[in-house]
Amino acid sequence: MRDFSYFVLAVSACFSTFTVLDGGASKAQAQEEDASVVSEAASFRIEVVTENMDVPWTMEFLPDGTALVGERGPGKLYRLDVKTGERTAISGLPDMLRDRKISSGLFDVRAHPNFAKNNWLYLAYGVGNTEGNGLAVDRYKLSGNSLSGGERLFEASPKISGKWHFGGRMAFSGGYLFLTTGDGYDHSARAQQLNAHAGKILRLHGDGRVPTDNPFVGVEGALPEIWSYGVRNPQGLDVNPTTGEIWANEHGPQGGDEVNIMRAGKNYGWPVITYGEEYGGGPIGDGITHKQGMEQPLYYWVPSIAPSGMEFYQGNAFARWKGNLFVGALALTHINRLVIEGERVIHEERLVADKGWRVRFIEEGPDGYLYFGVDDGMIMRLVPVD
Amino acid sequence: MRDFSYFVLAVSACFSTFTVLDGGASKAQAQEEDASVVSEAASFRIEVVTENMDVPWTMEFLPDGTALVGERGPGKLYRLDVKTGERTAISGLPDMLRDRKISSGLFDVRAHPNFAKNNWLYLAYGVGNTEGNGLAVDRYKLSGNSLSGGERLFEASPKISGKWHFGGRMAFSGGYLFLTTGDGYDHSARAQQLNAHAGKILRLHGDGRVPTDNPFVGVEGALPEIWSYGVRNPQGLDVNPTTGEIWANEHGPQGGDEVNIMRAGKNYGWPVITYGEEYGGGPIGDGITHKQGMEQPLYYWVPSIAPSGMEFYQGNAFARWKGNLFVGALALTHINRLVIEGERVIHEERLVADKGWRVRFIEEGPDGYLYFGVDDGMIMRLVPVD
Repeated sequence: MRDFSYFVLAVSACFSTFTVLDGGASKAQAQEEDASVVSEAASFRIEVVTENMDVPWTMEFLPDGTALVGERGPGKLYRLDVKTGERTAISGLPDMLRDRKISSGLFDVRAHPNFAKNNWLYLAYGVGNTEGNGLAVDRYKLSGNSLSGGERLFEASPKISGKWHFGGRMAFSGGYLFLTTGDGYDHSARAQQLNAHAGKILRLHGDGRVPTDNPFVGVEGALPEIWSYGVRNPQGLDVNPTTGEIWANEHGPQGGDEVNIMRAGKNYGWPVITYGEEYGGGPIGDGITHKQGMEQPLYYWVPSIAPSGMEFYQGNAFARWKGNLFVGALALTHINRLVIEGERVIHEERLVADKGWRVRFIEEGPDGYLYFGVDDGMIMRLVPVD
Repeated sequence: MRDFSYFVLAVSACFSTFTVLDGGASKAQAQEEDASVVSEAASFRIEVVTENMDVPWTMEFLPDGTALVGERGPGKLYRLDVKTGERTAISGLPDMLRDRKISSGLFDVRAHPNFAKNNWLYLAYGVGNTEGNGLAVDRYKLSGNSLSGGERLFEASPKISGKWHFGGRMAFSGGYLFLTTGDGYDHSARAQQLNAHAGKILRLHGDGRVPTDNPFVGVEGALPEIWSYGVRNPQGLDVNPTTGEIWANEHGPQGGDEVNIMRAGKNYGWPVITYGEEYGGGPIGDGITHKQGMEQPLYYWVPSIAPSGMEFYQGNAFARWKGNLFVGALALTHINRLVIEGERVIHEERLVADKGWRVRFIEEGPDGYLYFGVDDGMIMRLVPVD
């Protein structure tokens, strides 16, 4: 090989190329970044869709092309016109556990796969109080900008005195609703206990009934909603469009953030095995990373990127991103692009890592653009540049 | 989750912790680094074993605990006492193609798996001249520090007028000798042609005969030594100790460095498909990364790390590294640690990335320490620190 070439490459690889474009910003795009980013497999510009939100936590596109966006702490939901950036409050939301000292509120909103006909909207949020709380899922009919006809589909039990790690991400696959529950942070042992909902992936029918083919149906002492267990607090959940399987990510304790394929009856090991490490490096505790009967992660990050919302990209706007898995990163502020080949992660790229944006969720729009929310209160999108 | 923790982690993750240790250096360890490195799954110190070499390119431990170390350009081979750092020249080496303008010389040395009884030593090196050259493999009996009884086992055909990309890494598995051949750089199309040795993984018996169950034996117009094809210039080759399969890495054109499991008859796509990117980012050429009948990489790096020698770690000195795949990196100077789970890379860590060392090869010693050579002329080892 020509050795000298590597020096050139090593230097050039350290910098993204920025090109100044004409602004041409609409009113809603007042803060559009005047730059295009050249990345490995796509060039894009970053547009601000809306701003001044109180930590946007979730986003769901509806068939009419508008999106619902939620704020966790205030427990509020808005309809967002992604063309103008205008937000309109949705009324009729339920009471939630909202307390400045508790990481509760509105976690997720998903539309039923047949929403265009049935208008069912699913909300995951925290209920209870400081002594006894947990996750609940309701569904409502959305009419205009109002919710009505609420039904309680699920409520976690037993209640715990948690302040963090409620879980609450949802995804539909094959007509089933999948739901993450957190371990309650101080109750992590429950992630291994089948008589508690904490630290699990659950599977329900769209009306809340328990599917009779769930893996622990009929198992004495086990809660029948459980699909898989031994998870910590998955904040990213999506359906692999090729296989229909549920993929989830989760934060490790200090590092050891994982991506897993969530399969019926499987144990993902928390809190028994982990790739987490001590502050400053080195294995945590006994450093147990493997145990019989517990699944290894599909992929893991050390140091922690703090993964959040996750989306398989299926659009055409970014041809070379098709099938890639995008993960928001909070701690190591960026959008993480994983190239997936079957059940393998074969490559990782970190996008927009120089912005300091704690990326909380990622959603693909009907336009094929990649929308994401950051804790600074903005929702932005990546738009392809030729 | 407790959000503030991620800020602490993000900061702490940027620094390795260094602890000053007592020197206590022996004569051979005069340049021992007075520091221990805390990494994700191991703490170690770095010891200089020997120095002032002319780009050490290969290393092979012998049953007596000494190692053979080779210099590519000068085409020299030495026996190295890793306890004292003393090197003794091996005599009786063959004439080689050695030319300042050609990246030829001595590429690799491997001992026969039964070396303790038969003393067979295998050398891969360049032969020919600027008009017609290629890779050759001989075997010799090593007696003391002298080679004798040389036999030519393989010579690449057709000859080409290459200056770079000779290949020349070897590994034994199941009694077979596997060998990489490079594409000759200016002859990359030959990597797809079965009537040329360039750009292939070859499989031979230890005496040079072609195994009758090689995938292209009896195929008209195909060279029977070929095991797999469509590779560029693999400089890392090792046997997966669990499966016995051959794993290889290779540099992409500008990025798109790959790790692959080399399987009988498979086409790894070079130069048709690649994840390489243009200088400064963006897809290369038509940006074709997939094609029917061509294998996807097991894992790839963009930007290029420039992978070199590669070793599955099987020792006990670093318990948590067992089964990991270590890859030297030239351009992005470091030792790349890949955590392997079956046929998946589930995690990557970059060790000693702050030294500027172009790491050319990695070998596990009988002591379980990890030995590596750098272009600055040193051979060093990682030694565990409690």
